[in-house]
Amino acid sequence: MNDALITDLRAAVGDAYVWTEPEQMAPHLHEDRGRWTGTAIAVAHPGSTDEVAACVRACAQAGVAICPQGGNTGLVGGGMPDGGVVIATGRLNRIRNVDPLNATITVEAGCTLAAVQQAADEAGRLFPLSLASEGSCQIGGNLSTNAGGTAVLRYGNTRDLALGVEVVLPDGQVLNALSALRKDNTGYDLRDLFIGAEGTLGIITAAVLKLFPKPAARVTAFAGCAGPADALAIFDILRARAGDSLTAFEYLERFGVEMVLTHARGARDPMSAPHPAYCLIELSSPDPDADLEARMENALAEAIEAGLVTDAVIGASEAQNNALWALRENMSEMQKHYGASIKHDVAVPVGRVAEFITQGVAACLDYMPTMRPCPFGHFGDGNIHFNLTRPEDMSDKDFLSHYSAFNRIVHDLVVSMGGSISAEHGIGLAKREELLRYKDPVAMALFHKIKQAIDPQGLMNPGKVIAPESKEQP
Amino acid sequence: MNDALITDLRAAVGDAYVWTEPEQMAPHLHEDRGRWTGTAIAVAHPGSTDEVAACVRACAQAGVAICPQGGNTGLVGGGMPDGGVVIATGRLNRIRNVDPLNATITVEAGCTLAAVQQAADEAGRLFPLSLASEGSCQIGGNLSTNAGGTAVLRYGNTRDLALGVEVVLPDGQVLNALSALRKDNTGYDLRDLFIGAEGTLGIITAAVLKLFPKPAARVTAFAGCAGPADALAIFDILRARAGDSLTAFEYLERFGVEMVLTHARGARDPMSAPHPAYCLIELSSPDPDADLEARMENALAEAIEAGLVTDAVIGASEAQNNALWALRENMSEMQKHYGASIKHDVAVPVGRVAEFITQGVAACLDYMPTMRPCPFGHFGDGNIHFNLTRPEDMSDKDFLSHYSAFNRIVHDLVVSMGGSISAEHGIGLAKREELLRYKDPVAMALFHKIKQAIDPQGLMNPGKVIAPESKEQP
Repeated sequence: MNDALITDLRAAVGDAYVWTEPEQMAPHLHEDRGRWTGTAIAVAHPGSTDEVAACVRACAQAGVAICPQGGNTGLVGGGMPDGGVVIATGRLNRIRNVDPLNATITVEAGCTLAAVQQAADEAGRLFPLSLASEGSCQIGGNLSTNAGGTAVLRYGNTRDLALGVEVVLPDGQVLNALSALRKDNTGYDLRDLFIGAEGTLGIITAAVLKLFPKPAARVTAFAGCAGPADALAIFDILRARAGDSLTAFEYLERFGVEMVLTHARGARDPMSAPHPAYCLIELSSPDPDADLEARMENALAEAIEAGLVTDAVIGASEAQNNALWALRENMSEMQKHYGASIKHDVAVPVGRVAEFITQGVAACLDYMPTMRPCPFGHFGDGNIHFNLTRPEDMSDKDFLSHYSAFNRIVHDLVVSMGGSISAEHGIGLAKREELLRYKDPVAMALFHKIKQAIDPQGLMNPGKVIAPESKEQP
Repeated sequence: MNDALITDLRAAVGDAYVWTEPEQMAPHLHEDRGRWTGTAIAVAHPGSTDEVAACVRACAQAGVAICPQGGNTGLVGGGMPDGGVVIATGRLNRIRNVDPLNATITVEAGCTLAAVQQAADEAGRLFPLSLASEGSCQIGGNLSTNAGGTAVLRYGNTRDLALGVEVVLPDGQVLNALSALRKDNTGYDLRDLFIGAEGTLGIITAAVLKLFPKPAARVTAFAGCAGPADALAIFDILRARAGDSLTAFEYLERFGVEMVLTHARGARDPMSAPHPAYCLIELSSPDPDADLEARMENALAEAIEAGLVTDAVIGASEAQNNALWALRENMSEMQKHYGASIKHDVAVPVGRVAEFITQGVAACLDYMPTMRPCPFGHFGDGNIHFNLTRPEDMSDKDFLSHYSAFNRIVHDLVVSMGGSISAEHGIGLAKREELLRYKDPVAMALFHKIKQAIDPQGLMNPGKVIAPESKEQP
């Protein structure tokens, strides 16, 4: 039966682009951290939207599950197949159009994020989405997971950057919703239904994305403070003073900064004394005449006067700006020197982010007093990477056996504050049981109705987002 | 049978809040311009989300249609009932919460837009949505129609201003998706499905909306130019120079400006000579130190040097700024002195907006050489109110008999340019046949599947958006 399907797939995309040998398929059947391993009948590499549609039709006819896969850089297992056919989007890698005047770019799903950034840059525009994996993640995956990153504070999530999408539906029809419009009120918003659906409703094959004026000026500051409550007050001052030129407001604590200072090549402390916590602040503007340095100085002066900022440095050159950013960017990597981490990608309303960090750290220390808290992240979005480093005298394995217990502590707190158990990484396989536990049952029932309406055979990335055992409705 | 329903509604909301007498119901059964007249069994005025849910359950049980209605200011008949029960949201008028630090406001559907603006203002924040009808339209209606207005260029449509919604579903269950989060990737995006659905999938009863820093500085300019192509080049300069401080870029032509100069009290030409077209440009910033006047002057100087701007004035005071804005804001009203208008609320990609105006005017003049074109509007969003004023020597009635013919000319052109036949007013009753003509059939089929999945009885605002005769699928 699978033989007939393989034959159909080969007819659709060409023999060279249907892989069935284990060693060929291997890179598509595991993810970097080794948390999940997948299985598949075949990996198909369509080269056009029509070829994607032909593959989907073949699978639908055979009743075989489909797992759409981009750069395979996701952190929640959303791209791991459980049998069935992987449809890999890497060959859909054309920039279809760049329109500087409309400030849009039309790209195929398999373009890497870096390739999209570069095409925008070459047209004198900015595509602001920026992630650690931007060299290998694909824009189709960014859209399917509504990826976040470091520029959300100013430019929004991937959802906010998309004007239109092209989608191959579970029955193989192609939805052309490639609108390049700023305003379009013609019926239900299909675009946002497919964005963030993690490939469970269809395969996004192309999108129209917003571009922005390139920043002509940028200034970065690193400010020491007493802790999260003061950081929040500093954020409020910066937002009021800088408005839209505030492009990043990241939070770090001393333990995390020490990790980087100790282990990252060339890192040095920009301040003469340690501080309990730090804010990394960036202002940027497309206006070359915008006096961002004065603006940053005025805002920091106000925060120093209010007793909030205990010391601050402003990058005097692009090299210094980059050095300050490196303290933040190296944090995930340098944590590895300190043993296993238990990580939570969570968000709360911005006004409660300080309270969340304080209470969350206290609750986790209450459970395990020797655990070393390492919260950091996109403070200005209310999105904290609430990471816990294992105690010095505990094995990784022993520490990781407490993963569920820490999840319960952290997620209970997050939800009690009106927060989200997945701020930017999505649900995938990793959090589907947590979703079932915390999501409004009325919302879960709607998820099932929508899934059933659009994918009645249940073949599109099955088992992701919605846990199989969650089928009954309230 | 209806008696039992009326009894149930009275039990749900109290006798005083269920109206059945024709004179009581009358304001809910027609709209201001007299284009549509509705009929209803009753108008119910629930005072809480639970009461809305009880009304919906009563109607669902009786199999009677529901028409949700806000301020009844819509322009496409989306709030006009065709029998059944009107659920009016005006008593859901509490501001539930203002959180300046999270920069959010939680409001009930029946709050007028002006009341939301005012509550934000009192908290030292800006809610930027701004429309002509803001004193009487309700935020629930703004959300259900994804309203646009004059601040979209900088702040986006209503959709972009909403973080979370509360919805009474067609079966009377309440969906609590009142997230106040900037980042939340936990399943399908239900929020955006209900926003813009014009009440056909449920009744939005409350929402969490984004607030922004209040502008501390504002400068308005009025620039003469040769026509739409030059206006587009001017827009490109302003966008590059001013970035996010560019909060409005409106377009007017001489004929429209003359209407206002001739008929609006106190209006006067800010320039010594007439120009074929004008750009109304506003910069604003939350930073009191932002030198917007210098920024505007520099941008206009660049445009003058390039031969694009033929004359310009910059408002030297708030009174002068307001006088410049009045030239734009009085346009719809003053058109009435010139006889009937045929209006099109359309959008094209911003890069094609000049081309659209030029070709559209030419095509319409080709059809009726004495027609007087009056295009104006939100040029920077690609959204033109493409209005046609009747010939001087023709009756209103004769002119309006050409409505469909002009629709065909204008909408064919718009769609050929990848544009939208409804940029900001929605579909309602007015454009459902046009939608059926122009929308991708694959999208229409998805609309039906979603409607069927969420409202299987078809009782929620039936006949709106989706035309009854469009039920078959491709």
